[in-house]
Order: sequence, then structure tokens, then C-alpha cells
Amino acid sequence: MRIITLTTDFGWSSPYPAQMKAVILRLAPPGIEVVDVTHGVPPQDVTSGSYVMAVACPWFPKGTVHVGVVDPGVGTERRALLLETARGDVLIGPDNGLLLPLAEELGGIERAYRIREDEVSDWEVSATFHGRDVFAPAAVRAAVGEDPEEFCDPLSPGELEGPPIPEPEVREDAIRAHVWYVDDFGNVITNLEWERADPPEELLVRTETGEHRARRVKTYGEAEPGDLVVLRSSSGHLELAVVEGSAAERLGLNPGDPVELLPTE
Amino acid sequence: MRIITLTTDFGWSSPYPAQMKAVILRLAPPGIEVVDVTHGVPPQDVTSGSYVMAVACPWFPKGTVHVGVVDPGVGTERRALLLETARGDVLIGPDNGLLLPLAEELGGIERAYRIREDEVSDWEVSATFHGRDVFAPAAVRAAVGEDPEEFCDPLSPGELEGPPIPEPEVREDAIRAHVWYVDDFGNVITNLEWERADPPEELLVRTETGEHRARRVKTYGEAEPGDLVVLRSSSGHLELAVVEGSAAERLGLNPGDPVELLPTE
Amino acid sequence: MRIITLTTDFGWSSPYPAQMKAVILRLAPPGIEVVDVTHGVPPQDVTSGSYVMAVACPWFPKGTVHVGVVDPGVGTERRALLLETARGDVLIGPDNGLLLPLAEELGGIERAYRIREDEVSDWEVSATFHGRDVFAPAAVRAAVGEDPEEFCDPLSPGELEGPPIPEPEVREDAIRAHVWYVDDFGNVITNLEWERADPPEELLVRTETGEHRARRVKTYGEAEPGDLVVLRSSSGHLELAVVEGSAAERLGLNPGDPVELLPTE
Repeated sequence: MRIITLTTDFGWSSPYPAQMKAVILRLAPPGIEVVDVTHGVPPQDVTSGSYVMAVACPWFPKGTVHVGVVDPGVGTERRALLLETARGDVLIGPDNGLLLPLAEELGGIERAYRIREDEVSDWEVSATFHGRDVFAPAAVRAAVGEDPEEFCDPLSPGELEGPPIPEPEVREDAIRAHVWYVDDFGNVITNLEWERADPPEELLVRTETGEHRARRVKTYGEAEPGDLVVLRSSSGHLELAVVEGSAAERLGLNPGDPVELLPTE
Repeated sequence: MRIITLTTDFGWSSPYPAQMKAVILRLAPPGIEVVDVTHGVPPQDVTSGSYVMAVACPWFPKGTVHVGVVDPGVGTERRALLLETARGDVLIGPDNGLLLPLAEELGGIERAYRIREDEVSDWEVSATFHGRDVFAPAAVRAAVGEDPEEFCDPLSPGELEGPPIPEPEVREDAIRAHVWYVDDFGNVITNLEWERADPPEELLVRTETGEHRARRVKTYGEAEPGDLVVLRSSSGHLELAVVEGSAAERLGLNPGDPVELLPTE
Repeated sequence: MRIITLTTDFGWSSPYPAQMKAVILRLAPPGIEVVDVTHGVPPQDVTSGSYVMAVACPWFPKGTVHVGVVDPGVGTERRALLLETARGDVLIGPDNGLLLPLAEELGGIERAYRIREDEVSDWEVSATFHGRDVFAPAAVRAAVGEDPEEFCDPLSPGELEGPPIPEPEVREDAIRAHVWYVDDFGNVITNLEWERADPPEELLVRTETGEHRARRVKTYGEAEPGDLVVLRSSSGHLELAVVEGSAAERLGLNPGDPVELLPTE
């Protein structure tokens, strides 16, 4: 059995995820399973999409084909990518940074390819829906073990667009990171690995709107409702949370925003 | 393998889609797969539901059983339908126009039946949830190849309720169409086929709230943020879009609303 | 084939449901199927979650493993439960009442266990995500038929936390019930079984905000738009509805709120 996962910003109420699944079911032999990661990435938010993929996809078995479609540049000259990772997984999606954090989680890019968009399906490729017309058929070809060179041209990894947010900067007096994702509870997850942050028991969180005192906890249960806390997210990153509230609202933070962590003195 | 798809307005957070799936899993032999198209059709919006089905379902393999439940008339005298299409698919749902645009996409109705609601399952049929008690069991019977006459009465296609929105009118000086669907990005998709519209490079869009100048493009990338454009939707229809904005909001349009396209002079 | 169902408040746009599915797919042998009930339970709303599970899960085949994660106490001392029901199903989730109404629907609890959280998976258990690290691996172990004592300690059912809302009280002059669930249409479903309510044709509904006259109907179609009606929900409970409107909004009701039903005199 081989798995194809789908992560998109199409919205759960749109007909588009079903079209991708229908194409896969029509083209794939028995034994290939489609699993939705989510179709609820905020529209055109490549940063959030890259988080969802980086966090969810590594839990799937090795050799899974992960398709990501958050694609504001569809119909322009942006490339359609197929990446083989060191761990043996295949990543498929637009060349806009969406796939890079996941690739890194999976041991890095082993080989990169540009999909030849017009050769991958036997119907006309629409200008606005490469998820159905390019990425889904390419995923089936990868899942059945076809050599990518049959429908792709090799690329040097150096030619790819960069990741959606920069690496955290750890300086002596402060750590500068970025908001990677805001979950449905309003918890703010940064791109700073918890072990690298090693936050003290009390710290200051500086955002574009001001400074906020926060406390390090292990679980939400350790603090009082309304408290701003930092904790290790289930993905292993530094997370800002307001107990029984929304840290995103309190701090005015959105995906892609910078955030600084400082000592209280 | 045979596929049963589900399209409803139950909402992804309700327990109702799972009940339909549970009934199918309980009644169906191995080899029948259930695929969600969506459970996010706007509540009781038959027009939008008919779009989602017409656009998504034809991509599934021939012979698929498509169940649609957007059913404001449940519990009244409205009929429960089973339609066989020329292409060999089976459509199941209420007799309120929901299934007709899809039936047309699939080559038209070959045979129409009224499901005998009280005979299709071995539990009591609730007054408010025919999705679970009538349509899901009927779908399993169709998927295993049972003769519809075992649990249905034949109907003449002429007896069916009509489609939710009228056909577009193409006159010499203007085209009159209707809004068929508004997607999560606020893009407005009409029921006018792109080839039939053949829009000029510049045109006027007249709605109940005023006239708006629009430009024909191939992809969103060809215009500036805020521009009103017309383009070919991925479903092959004339679509109104505001680049990085919401055409539905700008033009005050909802599913079922009329819209006219005129030359700029 | 054995089924594992998932009911959570993680949100359909989060990466968390996919992580649970990935863990199950990685650990489970072929022949185990994962079905989403919903991931749209309102955040931390144990009452609503218990309704969704009690209503959806009994429709699945006997022997299904039902996992529920609405878990405000994750990371505290609250227990992780595995319950075997009289009907032969297995329920897995936190010890906060979430699973109890479903257990009752399935004939009651036959045996109760506390999952040994640190022994159930071969990776480190995060403080905030037991759905992935404890409940999903435990579900696979149950689904393959492993003896619960291999990874659980027996509990007496009397030691469990109680259900999220109290049983209805039927007095001579009034019935006192609680709101169990509000659906996407704004219909208010109480925890009062319809047969036990046996409401007269006209009745008064008393909430914390006032008294409202309601009429008993069989289907929405029997009343006029705007009418407040009581009817039998598809789950068999007394439901308050406003035809083509929201009863929850009209009456100011949320899950867990008390509601009284009185005669009109």
C-alpha cells in the first residue's frame, strides 16, 4: 500500500479537493490510499501551509507522496516541483517555498525536478487548477514508482525559491523568530525549536505592538486563565499561548510576523 | 471497487455525515469506498449544492454512485430520487433540482425512479434525516448492482422538479446569466459556459446594485490587486474575480442572483 | 476489517487530525480503516463532543474502536481511559465524561481501564497532544485485539468522572432538561428523550432569558418561517427549532444551559 496525502487552501466546502481525489482514484491502481491532511490552510497563506505540512507529514510512513497546493502564482511562470527526500518520501507542489520546511524535516532534498505540466495528464491543463491537472496526476505517477524523468526535468536544489520565513536568529541579548502558524485556539507557534530557545522561567515577548511578560510552563494546566505562557508545542517549537484565550489576538500576531524573546531585565 | 460519494449541507462539525458513512460501512460488502465531496454546502442552498456536484462528480470513475443531500423539503411530500445517467453513473437525492445539472454533465437521465422510502432500510425512517435512513441505504443497494425496481417506482423524467437556476439567455446586446456558486475566495462562478460567453477584452458587468467595468484575463496573475476580471473558471464557466479580493462582496452577489454582461459602449 | 473512528475538537484546518491518522496508518496492519466522525467539536466543549459521539458512533458496526479527544485537562493528572461496552465496542479518550453518554447508548460499560500513557507508544509522549501519542496508538492496539491489560490498569467504573450534563428531571408540573448540542442550523437538541417528554401540542419553553411559546410538529415543513417548534430530533431527543432561523440565537441557548418545558396554562 502506498499513501498520497493532500494539503491545500481550497476550503473544505469547495468542490476542488474532491476533484483531486477523483483524479487520483481514476488513475491509481488498487492499493493506493488518499489521506486528507487538511484543505483548510488559510487562503494563499504559504507560511501556514508550510507549517501544516512540516508538522503533519513526517508522521506518515516512509515513502508517502505528499502533495501541497497553496499556490498564489498558479498560471504564472512559477515551476511545478517534485522533490525526493533523503528519507525516501516524495513532495509535490508549487515552487514557492511551501515544500521546503517539510523537506528539511525529512532529511533534506535528495533530487529536485520540474514537472512538465503539459505531459502529466491526458486532458487540457487549466490555467487556474494545477492541483487537479498537474499535481494529482504527478502524485499517482510517483506513487506507482514511475521514474520522475519520464515526466519531469531535473533541477538543481539551488534554483528553488526560498522558504516562506527566515531562520531564527539567536543573539546574546535576544532571540528573533517568526510566527509560523496560528492554530484554531489562537495559540501562536513560532519557527524556533524549543531546545534552541531554552527559555528562562520568566521572559519578555516583544512584538510590533509592544512588550508582554510571559511565563514558561509545561502544560496549560499550570497557569491561570488569561495568563500569557510559553511552552513546547506538540511539534517541538516555542509556542505562545493565553490560557483559555487567544494569544494571537492578545499580541496581534499573524503568520509571518516577527517576534522577539528577551530576558525580563 | 465501486465508489459512493457524499455531498451535503450538514456541516463538517455535525454528527450527520458520520452517520451516513456508518450506515454505508455497515450495509456494504468489502470493496465499496465512501468519498466525501463536501459537507460544507451552505445550509439549504440547493443552487450551490448543484454546482458542487456538477463540477466535482464527473471526475470520478464511471459507475460511481453520487449521493446529494441539500434537502429543505425533507419530511414533506417531496420525492426521493434515484437517477441513472447515460454515462452509467447513479445519482441519489431529493427531487428539488439538486441532481439535474450533474445529470446533464453525465450525458442526461437515462431512467428516473422514486425511492420507496419505507422499504429501503430495516429501521424506522426519521422525519428529518433521509440522508441516513433513505439515501445512504439506497446508495449501497445501487452500488452492489441491485435492480432499482426492487426498491423504487419508475418515474418519467418530465415529472421531476426543475433545475435551481434557469439557462443563460444570449441576446444580441447582452448575456443574462445567474450566479451558480461563490467559492471560499469570493470568486463568483456563473452558469454561463466560457465558450458560449466568448467575452471581449473589456466588458460591463451589470448586477442589481450597479454596473462594473471588467477585463478578460487568462490568470489572476495578469491583473493588479483590486482589479475586477472575468476569466474561465476551472469548471469551464465564466467567473468574476477581484484579484486578491472578493468579487462576491464587491458586487453584492449571492448564489441564484442574476448578472448581465454587456459591451462597454 | 475493523474500524477506528475519530471525534476531536482539533479543527479541520489543523495538522493534528492528520497526525493521528498517520500514527494509525503506520502502526496498523492492513484491514483497519480510519473514519473521521468530526474534528469540528467546539474547542474544549466536552458536552457537545459527548453528543456527537453518542449520536454518530452507535451507527457503526459492533466492535468498532471509537476515539474521542476533547481534552481541556491534557497534561494534568486526568486519566486516559479505555472502556469496553456491553455491545462489544471499545471507547478511548480522556476521563472527563466525554465517553459516558456513548457508553450508555452501547449498553453500558463492561470493563474500564486506565491507559498506561508512557507504555503505549515507542516515542516520547508530549504534554499537550495525547491524541497522537496515547489515544491513537492505544486504538490500534485495541483494534488488533490486544488484551487491554497489556497496556492498561483496570479501573472500577465508579471511579470515573461523571457525565458532562445531569439527567433530565421529569416533575408533575414541568420537565427540566439541558441543552446537549446546537447544530450548524441553530437547532437546539436537549438531552431529553422524545418519548419521555411526550410534549403536548402547545407548550412553554422557559430559559434563563424568558418564556417562549412553542408548538409540537413532526417536520419543519408543518410550520411557518419564524415559528418556534419542538420536534423529535433525528437522534430521538426533544429538539427546539425556529423554522428557517436559529433557535439557539432566539432563545440565547448554548450547550450545557438548562431549559424547562411547561404546560401553557
